[in-house]
Amino acid sequence: MPAAPAPSPDGASPPASTAADASAQAGTAAPELAALPLSVRAGLLRALARTLGEHAGVLVDVADGETRLGAERLSGEIRRTQAQLRMFADIVETGAFLDVMIDPPDPAAQPAPRPDIRRMLVPLGPVAVFSASNFPFAFSVLGGDTASALAAGCPVVVKAHEGHPGLSDLTRDLAAGVLPTGALTVVHGRETGRALVTDPAIRAVGFTGSTSGGRALFDLAGSRPDPIPFYGELGSLNPVVVTPGACAERGADIVREYIASVTLGQGQFCTKPGLLFLPADHGLEELLRREIAAVPPAPLLGDWIGTAYHATLEELVTHPAARTLHLTPGHDDPRTSAPALLTTTAEGVRAHPELLRECFGPASLVVTYTSADDLLDTLHILPGGLTATIHGQEPQDETLAHRLSAALSAGRLIWNSWPTGVAVTHAMHHGGPWPSATSPLHTSVGGTAVARWMRPVAYQNMPEALLPEPLRSTNPWNVPQRVNGEFPGQWRPARATTVSES
Amino acid sequence: MPAAPAPSPDGASPPASTAADASAQAGTAAPELAALPLSVRAGLLRALARTLGEHAGVLVDVADGETRLGAERLSGEIRRTQAQLRMFADIVETGAFLDVMIDPPDPAAQPAPRPDIRRMLVPLGPVAVFSASNFPFAFSVLGGDTASALAAGCPVVVKAHEGHPGLSDLTRDLAAGVLPTGALTVVHGRETGRALVTDPAIRAVGFTGSTSGGRALFDLAGSRPDPIPFYGELGSLNPVVVTPGACAERGADIVREYIASVTLGQGQFCTKPGLLFLPADHGLEELLRREIAAVPPAPLLGDWIGTAYHATLEELVTHPAARTLHLTPGHDDPRTSAPALLTTTAEGVRAHPELLRECFGPASLVVTYTSADDLLDTLHILPGGLTATIHGQEPQDETLAHRLSAALSAGRLIWNSWPTGVAVTHAMHHGGPWPSATSPLHTSVGGTAVARWMRPVAYQNMPEALLPEPLRSTNPWNVPQRVNGEFPGQWRPARATTVSES
Repeated sequence: MPAAPAPSPDGASPPASTAADASAQAGTAAPELAALPLSVRAGLLRALARTLGEHAGVLVDVADGETRLGAERLSGEIRRTQAQLRMFADIVETGAFLDVMIDPPDPAAQPAPRPDIRRMLVPLGPVAVFSASNFPFAFSVLGGDTASALAAGCPVVVKAHEGHPGLSDLTRDLAAGVLPTGALTVVHGRETGRALVTDPAIRAVGFTGSTSGGRALFDLAGSRPDPIPFYGELGSLNPVVVTPGACAERGADIVREYIASVTLGQGQFCTKPGLLFLPADHGLEELLRREIAAVPPAPLLGDWIGTAYHATLEELVTHPAARTLHLTPGHDDPRTSAPALLTTTAEGVRAHPELLRECFGPASLVVTYTSADDLLDTLHILPGGLTATIHGQEPQDETLAHRLSAALSAGRLIWNSWPTGVAVTHAMHHGGPWPSATSPLHTSVGGTAVARWMRPVAYQNMPEALLPEPLRSTNPWNVPQRVNGEFPGQWRPARATTVSES
Repeated sequence: MPAAPAPSPDGASPPASTAADASAQAGTAAPELAALPLSVRAGLLRALARTLGEHAGVLVDVADGETRLGAERLSGEIRRTQAQLRMFADIVETGAFLDVMIDPPDPAAQPAPRPDIRRMLVPLGPVAVFSASNFPFAFSVLGGDTASALAAGCPVVVKAHEGHPGLSDLTRDLAAGVLPTGALTVVHGRETGRALVTDPAIRAVGFTGSTSGGRALFDLAGSRPDPIPFYGELGSLNPVVVTPGACAERGADIVREYIASVTLGQGQFCTKPGLLFLPADHGLEELLRREIAAVPPAPLLGDWIGTAYHATLEELVTHPAARTLHLTPGHDDPRTSAPALLTTTAEGVRAHPELLRECFGPASLVVTYTSADDLLDTLHILPGGLTATIHGQEPQDETLAHRLSAALSAGRLIWNSWPTGVAVTHAMHHGGPWPSATSPLHTSVGGTAVARWMRPVAYQNMPEALLPEPLRSTNPWNVPQRVNGEFPGQWRPARATTVSES
């Protein structure tokens, strides 16, 4: 997505804490938060979810005034944000996220006797979270980064997005009625955000936004005297590949669903499909034109989004290797979207990789291919993405689909559906190879997002009374404990068959 | 540890591949290695362990010629390296390291229906490994970084340490008889190493060495157009705290064990205790002097180690806030160690934090404290470490020990034993907060080291035949699968009691 605007000079937002004040508060809260029993920590997350629901009316009003996203979408986003908080509460309560391992002593071990070694994850400490413009709830003050960090036991300092400062402060005030002092603070302004990334008390950073903005903060985090982890979710092209078989079988349905996915929320999603690969003889151009033309322009999140969208679109429209299928009139008004569709060939993409850039808004590029090799050669040069989608036929396309899966570099591979709409589940991965994320190992959505904010500690020969509760042999917190690498008892699933060697 | 020397100008080592050649070979091998069934991958690791054992004689001879470490130590290190390879073979075979999660579809889910989401870890791709001077086997060509990367399914390009180039090439040649082409290559030279870190094919870097050298390569990896994960295991002070009770009860034993730990392998371990905190009235100065004086000087790994050791030692010896307890004569000869012991007060450390620097070699600093607060105030300013050790009495010291544990920032907390000798087990953590490691989330020793070289991929609505084997519902590879966040059947340990709320 495009970079956020510079802070407005009129000082209309409430006075912000300094980064140093906020970080100091978080630092004071850190040991208290880390020491809470898991059931209490889970209770805080559930109470935050309840509070959001109880104040949904005013939250939607304030959010709509600042983001123009509409009451229906915003109400749904609050429910998603509540679901995220509750999922992390469940995860905290089971204790599996502590990744407890116990290796009992072994005096007979070779090449040397082994002491008692027990390991678990502990909170990193205060975390900075940069919230997103396009999800004022789900990726903002009480969004997934904050929920997962609180689940880990880390206090959070949120850098509010300039697109919804009032909502950010309101959300903070509601959370203050639930959380211990210092567990969640909100700061405003770009310079304050930069100061946060270099503040000595901050131990990790989460970020959702543009590749350029994320890269600048990633570099800043890495330049500290003590570099800290920086988890940025940046831009993504989200290619969709349609096999010849699928195109012949249900090309018209695919086109209609594609246009709906491209223009959902005016294309202001990091999972918007930016590329559609169709066989050269697809015969769907008229339908593509008709479907995109039928989407009415609508307000964008902010003028800065519109300005960036129209500038990127202009470059694509005037590119000699791309042909415009449809450009909605009024595309010079930064306040409204202007849905657009362009087309080029797979060969054109290889010759002009500058066409491979995210255009945050309701625009997409249809790429035609002449053969499987023509398609695969082009997929191999795509940058890493959050998602990649295949529309195919099964079992007919099995061989081709395996080759496509191997060629697509993405954090989520989707079959016969669409990348927009990210399910919040244990297994969801919302990340991917650069530039979709700054770390390919981590996710900003789903149960494992909590692992970003924790570090392992091993305890050697520690007496039971000095061990943290989750590591004790009596297991007073009833958490899953692996012993010598395996859970006691039933580790293999009951339905397991023999190991295949093929 | 100190930075490695510049490459010798005489070109005596065998001709090295360029970084680009080696990376290209690794890139070609990557899909083949990733596609191997787990049992075959495990078999390769076991075959490497066998090969090391079969050629132990010549390996020890070549290693001793280059490192002066002696046959006994080197033979033991080969056995440790074999144990590492076999542990990762076991880990590969169970399949738990793939971290498989399956969330079945839920059409009734709120706020939106949920598709089928399945997640596993996949190999990152070619990995660069910078081997260490002080472990020519266990942290070198077939050491823990390489073993864990191969376990993950990643080809490895090893940058050989300048201290044992011949051994590195010999080990590579032996491995070539076992591994697929391109799965393991070795390059030489500092500039080649830097080229490796910026090579587009390399997807992650492992490093063991000095803080300065590691920082330079960390910065290089972060400056790429596409930054990659850099896992550096750097320097550590490894403080040891002796409580007043433990000092009174068994101070003399502790001193003898401390000197043995400080001078083990001439102090050339990253876990060497660099600080010993004793109560001010310890009365052990004569014993400390006698014990350290009884340790004979011995050859160091290389002149560059000796030069750095003696330079750091000179700064400590001439520091006005430190008093020399013992300095072995001959400390100006870079070819031999000169065991040394200094002392200062906790207050002196707080006033002169420049005393808190790693001195790689057989030297350590005894710090006296006057009260628990005096001790804790000083522990709070220590940099992050690989280890921290408490010698105390149980149950008498319980309260103090809890405060000490909370104050010590380290990856491994040790009770009444010593940090040297890192057990290679599932739960071992060998890493820690900066500057002991570049990433506090990861370890270079122990079962979870494999996670450094893998990234998650989620599969959405993918038909059974298109899913990787570990994600299929039929589970043909018989790997542990979490469903909706939990393993089917017995997830909680059988001995579990109720959850404590206190």
